[in-house]
Amino acid sequence: MSKTSRKIKPKLDRLSQALENGELDQARRMLNRGLAPVDVAHLLESSPPKERNLLWELVDAELQGDVLQYLGEDIQTDFLRDMDAVDVLAATENLEPDDVADILQRLPNAVILEVLDSMEAQERQRVETVLSFPEDTAGGLMNTDTITIRPDITLDVVLRYIRRHERLPDSTDTLLVVSRRDEFIGTLPINRLLVSDPSVTVREVMDTDSVVIAALMPETEVASLFEKHDLISAPVVGGDGNLLGRITIDDVVDVIRGDAEHQVMSMAGMDEDEDTFSPVLRTSWRRAIWLGINLLTAFMASAVIGMFEGTIQKITALAVLMPIVASMGGIAGSQALTVLIRGIALGHVKSGNVRWLLKREIIVAVLNGMLWAVVVAGIAIAWFGDIQLGAIIGAAIMINLVIAAVTGTLLPVLLKKLSIDPALSGSVILTTVTDVIGFMAFLGLATWLYL
Amino acid sequence: MSKTSRKIKPKLDRLSQALENGELDQARRMLNRGLAPVDVAHLLESSPPKERNLLWELVDAELQGDVLQYLGEDIQTDFLRDMDAVDVLAATENLEPDDVADILQRLPNAVILEVLDSMEAQERQRVETVLSFPEDTAGGLMNTDTITIRPDITLDVVLRYIRRHERLPDSTDTLLVVSRRDEFIGTLPINRLLVSDPSVTVREVMDTDSVVIAALMPETEVASLFEKHDLISAPVVGGDGNLLGRITIDDVVDVIRGDAEHQVMSMAGMDEDEDTFSPVLRTSWRRAIWLGINLLTAFMASAVIGMFEGTIQKITALAVLMPIVASMGGIAGSQALTVLIRGIALGHVKSGNVRWLLKREIIVAVLNGMLWAVVVAGIAIAWFGDIQLGAIIGAAIMINLVIAAVTGTLLPVLLKKLSIDPALSGSVILTTVTDVIGFMAFLGLATWLYL
Repeated sequence: MSKTSRKIKPKLDRLSQALENGELDQARRMLNRGLAPVDVAHLLESSPPKERNLLWELVDAELQGDVLQYLGEDIQTDFLRDMDAVDVLAATENLEPDDVADILQRLPNAVILEVLDSMEAQERQRVETVLSFPEDTAGGLMNTDTITIRPDITLDVVLRYIRRHERLPDSTDTLLVVSRRDEFIGTLPINRLLVSDPSVTVREVMDTDSVVIAALMPETEVASLFEKHDLISAPVVGGDGNLLGRITIDDVVDVIRGDAEHQVMSMAGMDEDEDTFSPVLRTSWRRAIWLGINLLTAFMASAVIGMFEGTIQKITALAVLMPIVASMGGIAGSQALTVLIRGIALGHVKSGNVRWLLKREIIVAVLNGMLWAVVVAGIAIAWFGDIQLGAIIGAAIMINLVIAAVTGTLLPVLLKKLSIDPALSGSVILTTVTDVIGFMAFLGLATWLYL
Repeated sequence: MSKTSRKIKPKLDRLSQALENGELDQARRMLNRGLAPVDVAHLLESSPPKERNLLWELVDAELQGDVLQYLGEDIQTDFLRDMDAVDVLAATENLEPDDVADILQRLPNAVILEVLDSMEAQERQRVETVLSFPEDTAGGLMNTDTITIRPDITLDVVLRYIRRHERLPDSTDTLLVVSRRDEFIGTLPINRLLVSDPSVTVREVMDTDSVVIAALMPETEVASLFEKHDLISAPVVGGDGNLLGRITIDDVVDVIRGDAEHQVMSMAGMDEDEDTFSPVLRTSWRRAIWLGINLLTAFMASAVIGMFEGTIQKITALAVLMPIVASMGGIAGSQALTVLIRGIALGHVKSGNVRWLLKREIIVAVLNGMLWAVVVAGIAIAWFGDIQLGAIIGAAIMINLVIAAVTGTLLPVLLKKLSIDPALSGSVILTTVTDVIGFMAFLGLATWLYL
């Protein structure tokens, strides 16, 4: 809970005024005492590089870790590059093990080891546990700050045990019941603890059928379990059934948000951690790669058109109308592609129903193909006074819409099977297909009928 | 928490086998007793219409409401269309007021009134409170099942009061402190209640600076507050400061997921509640509208090409190369557009830094323009042996990339100001601009230089 949830706007205004007037001491005070770390992070993310670096230097060392954990990957990496092991250690002192692990993963190996070496034994072990799992699995997402209890004590003992804590870890909605050998047995919701008879034992009221997460479960699966079962936290167990830690909803929300952004950003060839204000050269280079890939596909379309130069020279109306055929195919294909990618992500699309979906998409394409073929043919005839041209463009639109539907449906399924991210490569491949088929069908039919 | 979190696959397999063999009684048993409502909902969403309707008929009436709340809007509406007030009442009996309100909103007004009339007074009042706020605001999202306490009692009294409940509402992580006149005063985290001295009063340990949500706050703002402050629940207050209810993280997660899907689906002209298996005719019609809108923009591009038919007839290489200019502009523009839409959604983009972003996007466009202008010009010269053609296409790419950057940056800012959803209309407008400018620059320069 933050002290600055309301009315941070005037504070930000005063801060930026202090910065403009060069009153750095005052700005430093406002930044470190007036704002919550999450607001400082948001301010940094909303600032162009020059102001951002100035602001970062004003953040106190012991606050930097708190702020770091709320920053995007890109910016984290930028700031961490200038920090040595001592700085990192100071910054991460008060963070939870999963957040420390996240930050360490952006550092060179030598620095990671140096930081780990300087940690207290217990803290080091916790961070190392998290680091031992891939970042995008349950193990990499979990926290080790669990409150565990034994099954054979009474709730009264549990209540007294809890009262010995100064505070409970954030998002503690359940206590985790483990055996003497640390095997996970069940969960005791805190709210049930509060309403149950204190004289009964934990075993009598605990849940043994609640959701348990395997350490190597991919984080997107973890997220869908949380969504499906409205969880606030869930225990993570290793292959031997031992309790390793727990995952809390706030980290899951980050996964859900990241997942969703991934798809949107990927469609334009970008990364979900892209910094809105990243420096010009970095941005240019990253985008250049995507432009280059698309240029290749554009040249493939050009090569197809090049095959029909002779026809175009005779009937220039073809050049005027050909983008329509390609564009309608691209739009129809991307609709099918989007529905399929989403259906796969939600787990609605399985091998058993792809055939039904394919059939549906083809029928939709034929229906829309008929509608728009007639419309476009009519306009083409009215425009160029050529009935044959109308028939050709109508047929080409029909062909391209059907091919677009088949490609849009099967491509994501195929890419998924090959473990290729359909959000990133799907639309490029689809557009290549609809451009090539669109130009080929239209110009090919025209060549065949006119020449 | 569900009993079926693990190993539901074999159950689903047995169920579909029972359905195939026509063993409907057995299928009905499996559906109603073997699966959690959320799993039944998922099964319905993953089934083509015919199987879906068969399955729905097998779901017991008292379970239908539970299942309904997990279904997408599209499917909800389909099922509700065939239910009368008595069915709806039976189905929604055990639901929380916000879920009942969500379901009622899909019904015709006459049925809503009939259902409300048949409810118990207290339940009716709760549902009406939620219904009185727009669906996409905090008020429409909130639940009324709050546990409230007075500030001047001791924690010991609070503990005894809680123990009188059989169970606490889901996601109750805080008790809400209100005055005698129901004014919201503060929150008491349950976990603090557990670790504090029972003899102190609520006033001494409660939080008075935690996040409070105004009933009319848009749901996306609610979501970003929850994300920013890692909340599990938050109180909702009316304009008079009175406590109205509370919002819990599970409903917020749905908002976040819906928000993210909205952007992805909008980009292809679809709705985030689109049913993966929606019937052919409905799908065709919805997509036809988007295809029609895009056809208009495609014809605008064609009209531009049509202005230069004479030039194309003389130099057909122009027809071969022109899609490259349009396509590079479209890609570069959609990169800028995507970054800006995301930056606006995250609150990174404000009026103060649009100028910086515009400058950056233009520089990026110039750098990438130079790079790809040289590459494309080189290929064009090698292909057609025409240096002038290379120069023309290079210049056109440069022009189109800069225009694309300016459009991609300013368009979402402008649309936002006009309260138009940039995810839905942004890419259509952008593509129209990059197509028109691309063809015009390329063919216009060629006409000027060659004729």
